[in-house]
Amino acid sequence: MPQDIEFYVDVASPYTYLATTQVASLAERTGAAVRWRPFLLGGVFKATGNTPPATLPARARYMLQDLYRWAADYGVPFNFPAAFPVNSLTAMRALTSLDADALPQATARMMTAYWVEGRDPSDPAVIADVLGADALAAAADPAVKAALRAHTDRAIERGAFGAPTFFVGDQMFFGNDRLHFVEAAARREP
Amino acid sequence: MPQDIEFYVDVASPYTYLATTQVASLAERTGAAVRWRPFLLGGVFKATGNTPPATLPARARYMLQDLYRWAADYGVPFNFPAAFPVNSLTAMRALTSLDADALPQATARMMTAYWVEGRDPSDPAVIADVLGADALAAAADPAVKAALRAHTDRAIERGAFGAPTFFVGDQMFFGNDRLHFVEAAARREP
Repeated sequence: MPQDIEFYVDVASPYTYLATTQVASLAERTGAAVRWRPFLLGGVFKATGNTPPATLPARARYMLQDLYRWAADYGVPFNFPAAFPVNSLTAMRALTSLDADALPQATARMMTAYWVEGRDPSDPAVIADVLGADALAAAADPAVKAALRAHTDRAIERGAFGAPTFFVGDQMFFGNDRLHFVEAAARREP
Repeated sequence: MPQDIEFYVDVASPYTYLATTQVASLAERTGAAVRWRPFLLGGVFKATGNTPPATLPARARYMLQDLYRWAADYGVPFNFPAAFPVNSLTAMRALTSLDADALPQATARMMTAYWVEGRDPSDPAVIADVLGADALAAAADPAVKAALRAHTDRAIERGAFGAPTFFVGDQMFFGNDRLHFVEAAARREP
């Protein structure tokens, strides 16, 4: 039996967009279930003292090339958006309000809106259009806000410092570029 | 004709150790020539404002697991050394003094001394033992010091912000985890 994969996502993260394009085929190959965990990368950065990679000018220039290389390698569309970095708080709250079954598709839709179509995920009108008016309204629910905070705190407790972050059991993996390790771990006996 | 690969190395960097264990087979598969470029990662960090990944406690904990995963995946020995981080200035000067032909083997020997055997590359006795007394003596040569500084400055000018850094023509690649992109670039027509 393959092990479950927990997949911590924030739509603000370009490498997480890349990973979202790959997890369905990974799940199919391995038979592993992927549990999508919306979390807030800004909260992770604040708690751990980490900074976004694009903070450093030399790294930002390289990152742009690197992202397009991965997109070409995966054969997926990618257009670095004008609105970057972006505040994903409301969008991540809206995603948190959704059922687990709806989450993969809804997250993928929001990722495409931002990382392919250049639509701003901090804009309530975009959130309502992509995720629905109910999800946007639910983003204001104190219980939803608390749930996103709890997911984020839990990821930090478990060692997360960036996105995407994966767990297979207690083993943590960081980055789109560690999907091969995630896949190998999911295949191994616990 | 495959394109040349420039490989910027500093023995202080664990991910560069991992990459050094792979470049010979990459060169064999592609027919590409690998040009080893000793540089000083500390100088790169200082110039770009970058910080070593292990500066962040959460990242340092993860990095240790990640390094052992890569070593297992590659089937190479790895033992995280007690002396870390380390000042590699004299060792990198000693390597800079060597002929291009001697550099791959000499760098690999110093990498093994540090990343497998736990010997301290800041210790002149270790440098003399691993690279020879002549190389240690040459590390004090002003021309050698200037050459290492020039290599480092050139890498920074070209966009480097960490190690290992690779160039194929003008294209830069950062990290042991980008070797597959380096390989694909070396195979492509310029």
